[in-house]
Amino acid sequence: MTGAGTDSTRPPREGGPAIVLVRPQLAVNIGMCARAMANFGLTDLRLVSPREGWPRTGAYRKGAYAAAAGAVHLLEKAKLYDSVEAAVADLNFVYASTARERGQAKPVLLPREAMGTSAVRIAAGETHGILFGPERTGLDNDDVALADAILTFPVNPAYASLNLAQAVLLSAYEYFSAAHGQIAPFEIAERSPPAQREMTLSFFEFLEGHLEERGFFRPVSKRPVMQRNLRNMFHRMQLTQQDVRTWWGMVVRLIEGPRETPQTRKRIKQKKPDSA
Amino acid sequence: MTGAGTDSTRPPREGGPAIVLVRPQLAVNIGMCARAMANFGLTDLRLVSPREGWPRTGAYRKGAYAAAAGAVHLLEKAKLYDSVEAAVADLNFVYASTARERGQAKPVLLPREAMGTSAVRIAAGETHGILFGPERTGLDNDDVALADAILTFPVNPAYASLNLAQAVLLSAYEYFSAAHGQIAPFEIAERSPPAQREMTLSFFEFLEGHLEERGFFRPVSKRPVMQRNLRNMFHRMQLTQQDVRTWWGMVVRLIEGPRETPQTRKRIKQKKPDSA
Repeated sequence: MTGAGTDSTRPPREGGPAIVLVRPQLAVNIGMCARAMANFGLTDLRLVSPREGWPRTGAYRKGAYAAAAGAVHLLEKAKLYDSVEAAVADLNFVYASTARERGQAKPVLLPREAMGTSAVRIAAGETHGILFGPERTGLDNDDVALADAILTFPVNPAYASLNLAQAVLLSAYEYFSAAHGQIAPFEIAERSPPAQREMTLSFFEFLEGHLEERGFFRPVSKRPVMQRNLRNMFHRMQLTQQDVRTWWGMVVRLIEGPRETPQTRKRIKQKKPDSA
Repeated sequence: MTGAGTDSTRPPREGGPAIVLVRPQLAVNIGMCARAMANFGLTDLRLVSPREGWPRTGAYRKGAYAAAAGAVHLLEKAKLYDSVEAAVADLNFVYASTARERGQAKPVLLPREAMGTSAVRIAAGETHGILFGPERTGLDNDDVALADAILTFPVNPAYASLNLAQAVLLSAYEYFSAAHGQIAPFEIAERSPPAQREMTLSFFEFLEGHLEERGFFRPVSKRPVMQRNLRNMFHRMQLTQQDVRTWWGMVVRLIEGPRETPQTRKRIKQKKPDSA
């Protein structure tokens, strides 16, 4: 699944498939689609005759811009078309996203396999796009007929209705994962280097020696298994060098009791004044 | 990645990890999270001190229920807690979802690997959960400290802010894909059976014979390569038996000209009256 660049130090390539919203109804959904695209590096938003026109002043446009959060640049750059044919004219490969069977003999693909292929072919210079239909009705059959393949989502059959922006999000997520690899935006927190076995083992011997002295391992026949379980608990912690020093200190305090401080010295003096 | 049940005929298991929304701010986001869960078969929604309380009458509750679309049953069943400790008390494994490094020495996992593991362990009877923080601020460090591992999303570093419901959606999607396999809710449309090679080959011979007669293959030296390219174009169509019959019919019409109809017969009579 991880295509070209899986180098997390490199800023991810932008671009990816065009997202073609066919006759979208709600401004807020257009905005949320833009945000979902931005989350995963998609940049090519195309609108085919939005129900209330585009761009607009007033509440409609405001709603879209609010929902887009930081991704307004995608709305600014969104291209407007009056037909799906025009919107896909420059594309080499077109998916039609549908939630149900459409009686058209086209391959039916899931986002992971589809975007895996598209990532490779887009990297090779092709231009791909995905059609998403109106919220209420989805794409009509003439829209689907324009596509090379059907894209559908592996949803719970008991509740299959996927919100428009969420369908866009899953496609963008799978494209980004395929094109750039699943790379965490950050690594595990900086921590002390892992302890060498010799360091851990000498701590085990120190601890087990004191436990032995104090008759912890009873019955003696059980000592080997008790010891094994104890050591395994520590191994599961994947101790760092600092962790081992911390444990060593804890055990010392448990053995020796309160550290000597002015207060404790005072208390001790009071207990045995002759020692003064 | 595809765990236990990849049998599309079987209704998917419901359940999956608990989704724990910690101090969520907006009712509409709670509703959208419920919808995203329902899309991928998650059923255990937990709310830790929602900013405006829960359940509520009035606009707040209305907003949540509207956003949940068909998934109101999840809102009805949502459990309310006044601390994260209480919300995770019964869980065996807890993820904290964060968008940035939190300086805590915990494994950092991506949704695909994390939910792949959880799917296997939940199927084995464990209970897992994912903490999601307030929209504006995310989880605080005390919340993160309660988790076994950090869950983060492979987003575009240039625009990493993922909407709450979208983070829930990606987790639910990866859990569902791992637990039940990526299965399309429908198959490719019913179509005529694929043509046997012999059927395709006799069509090729028929077509090429007529092209040969008409001197299509020129220069003759190029005939083999022209023929190969022609046949490969047809092979790429993955012809069904019906497709081959359709092509055969098209070629016949191209060769023989207009089919005889009353009109054409009349026209022919007019051209050569003696034939009457």
